[in-house]
Amino acid sequence: MQFLQLKKEEGIEIVTLTRGKVNALNEHVIEEMTDCFNTLADDSEVKAVIITGQGKFFSFGFDIPEFLHYPKEDFVRYLNKFTDFYTALFLYPKPVIAALNGHTIAGGCMIAVSCDYRIMISGKAKIALNEINFGSSLFAGSVELMKLLLGQRKAEEAIYSGAMYSAAEAYQLGLIDRVSTEEEIGSEAKNIARMYASKDGVAFKSIKNLLRKPAAEEMRKREQDSIREFVDIWYAENTWKKLQEKKIY
Amino acid sequence: MQFLQLKKEEGIEIVTLTRGKVNALNEHVIEEMTDCFNTLADDSEVKAVIITGQGKFFSFGFDIPEFLHYPKEDFVRYLNKFTDFYTALFLYPKPVIAALNGHTIAGGCMIAVSCDYRIMISGKAKIALNEINFGSSLFAGSVELMKLLLGQRKAEEAIYSGAMYSAAEAYQLGLIDRVSTEEEIGSEAKNIARMYASKDGVAFKSIKNLLRKPAAEEMRKREQDSIREFVDIWYAENTWKKLQEKKIY
Amino acid sequence: MQFLQLKKEEGIEIVTLTRGKVNALNEHVIEEMTDCFNTLADDSEVKAVIITGQGKFFSFGFDIPEFLHYPKEDFVRYLNKFTDFYTALFLYPKPVIAALNGHTIAGGCMIAVSCDYRIMISGKAKIALNEINFGSSLFAGSVELMKLLLGQRKAEEAIYSGAMYSAAEAYQLGLIDRVSTEEEIGSEAKNIARMYASKDGVAFKSIKNLLRKPAAEEMRKREQDSIREFVDIWYAENTWKKLQEKKIY
Repeated sequence: MQFLQLKKEEGIEIVTLTRGKVNALNEHVIEEMTDCFNTLADDSEVKAVIITGQGKFFSFGFDIPEFLHYPKEDFVRYLNKFTDFYTALFLYPKPVIAALNGHTIAGGCMIAVSCDYRIMISGKAKIALNEINFGSSLFAGSVELMKLLLGQRKAEEAIYSGAMYSAAEAYQLGLIDRVSTEEEIGSEAKNIARMYASKDGVAFKSIKNLLRKPAAEEMRKREQDSIREFVDIWYAENTWKKLQEKKIY
Repeated sequence: MQFLQLKKEEGIEIVTLTRGKVNALNEHVIEEMTDCFNTLADDSEVKAVIITGQGKFFSFGFDIPEFLHYPKEDFVRYLNKFTDFYTALFLYPKPVIAALNGHTIAGGCMIAVSCDYRIMISGKAKIALNEINFGSSLFAGSVELMKLLLGQRKAEEAIYSGAMYSAAEAYQLGLIDRVSTEEEIGSEAKNIARMYASKDGVAFKSIKNLLRKPAAEEMRKREQDSIREFVDIWYAENTWKKLQEKKIY
Repeated sequence: MQFLQLKKEEGIEIVTLTRGKVNALNEHVIEEMTDCFNTLADDSEVKAVIITGQGKFFSFGFDIPEFLHYPKEDFVRYLNKFTDFYTALFLYPKPVIAALNGHTIAGGCMIAVSCDYRIMISGKAKIALNEINFGSSLFAGSVELMKLLLGQRKAEEAIYSGAMYSAAEAYQLGLIDRVSTEEEIGSEAKNIARMYASKDGVAFKSIKNLLRKPAAEEMRKREQDSIREFVDIWYAENTWKKLQEKKIY
């Protein structure tokens, strides 16, 4: 694997995103993550997974400069893989802890909210679903994930404002479960993962399905339509211009 | 228009209810509001809408003395128009800010909770969905709106008690987003409207649909049945007597 | 009735579970409760119901030692009766107040969360949905009830941890509505029941259906499948061993 580092410690698998400075998401990264999580699902030694990033970013989201060269149909294919990935993560049969080591933006935030638990470092790191600020829409599933986590009203507030939340603010909002520090996030994430790993795996998987499958089925029903509309808006003159001007950076 | 005043300021349209002392809702008012919002949806200069009332009331809700003279079938027709209006408002393609200038009761509260943001004056003004206190039921959609805003348990508390909440209490509960004063509500509402208006309109509309259409579809499925039951209870001896005695005033 | 004591006071019916030290639930108890609540639904003198337990327990949940002698098919029959009971309670046409006089565990907690209001004594009493800690799954309906009450994230936290909450902690979480004491819970529960009983019964029933029927329909759709999976896990070697070792006591 080119963009993922794996490390196993006492039944906890740590998956680290390692793609450039900002861990930007492209088709290759999503394919690697999909394969990696599929493999770990079948590995009976793995009781829980931690997903994190290298450097100052968990992930800055989609690799927009790269996608500006994608024809529409290729972008649709990528978006299908991406939304399939976060949906699979949302229903993943083992516990997944997101250790948010830095900025967690847009597509990066969507991955984080699909996990079972989010711990994030305090300081300059921000978390945001800020697509609206460059004229982009969202996916049905990503919106549903925010609604589940925050409730309808706070999800609307976070999504309409596109606000960049510090860990403390995100904790207040309910977007993360715990605030940590750069020094301690690794060991704290492992402690949390161990707590989850101590539970009976069969019962955990069954209960997680009860908790999440109804929402996942609703997400899937609407995802295709929302991808179509997302793409139409993405390639519309107004949004395209903002993306090219990289106002988002 | 007889019962609405309109005023446009830098892309913000201010719609003011002006019907008597309490801005009571009847068929004519709902028709005017429906037409007005339809027109504003097509007006490309309008980026956001503020809805407010004149005097000491945002709205006291249905004009009960008038409806006591309505035959059942006419009342059903009115209720269809009313529930269609708040559903359309809930899905309105532009941001709608409710500036609650005073008492916001029953049907008035249903309109408020359909908007994107609620700001309310402190002091004597109350907000309540108090139908239970005069033996009336509610509509499926209005209940769903309360559940979305407050969560199941707090919605039950508000609806079963029929409590009259001050702005401070309503803010605590999550029923409004901000407490203001009589002097400042106008300028504060405009500031909030400007924040919403600054977002890309196409992205806003698309995202609002993702956030709200699934719930709106559920609302619509059940609205007709709930109107039938609402009317049966409304015309039942016990409720009718309470309505005639105007215990509600 | 063998395991229930009934007492009527000014339109409030108090139903007390009286089965041994821990009010463990078996098929007989559930049948009695089902019959009892059906009868009370038709009794026009009853305006509200309080459900409570004798001794130091509201209910410790299923009578596991007894169920260890149940063949699979009999256990399935019991689970159908049990889930039917809490679903009927969730939609019960009259207000039901749970007066949690002591420990409220597993199946006991499921009954509590089906009611309209929960008041619990402070002190040593705990409330928990702790099935995961003995390798057991849950039922679709019971999970949905927790999600409705707590929201998705807090429901996940409570269910994945299987934590034993004191009344104060449960109140903080939203799992109960009020903390009381051993001395005062009786009179406080009656005050709350009186408040509910003072509302128009027809309006209450209609509104309760609007608030809860959509969720109940979703619960029912998934209940059968979840019972099948629950039973498979319950009789699996790993869980069965934990149940026999009574690690849960």
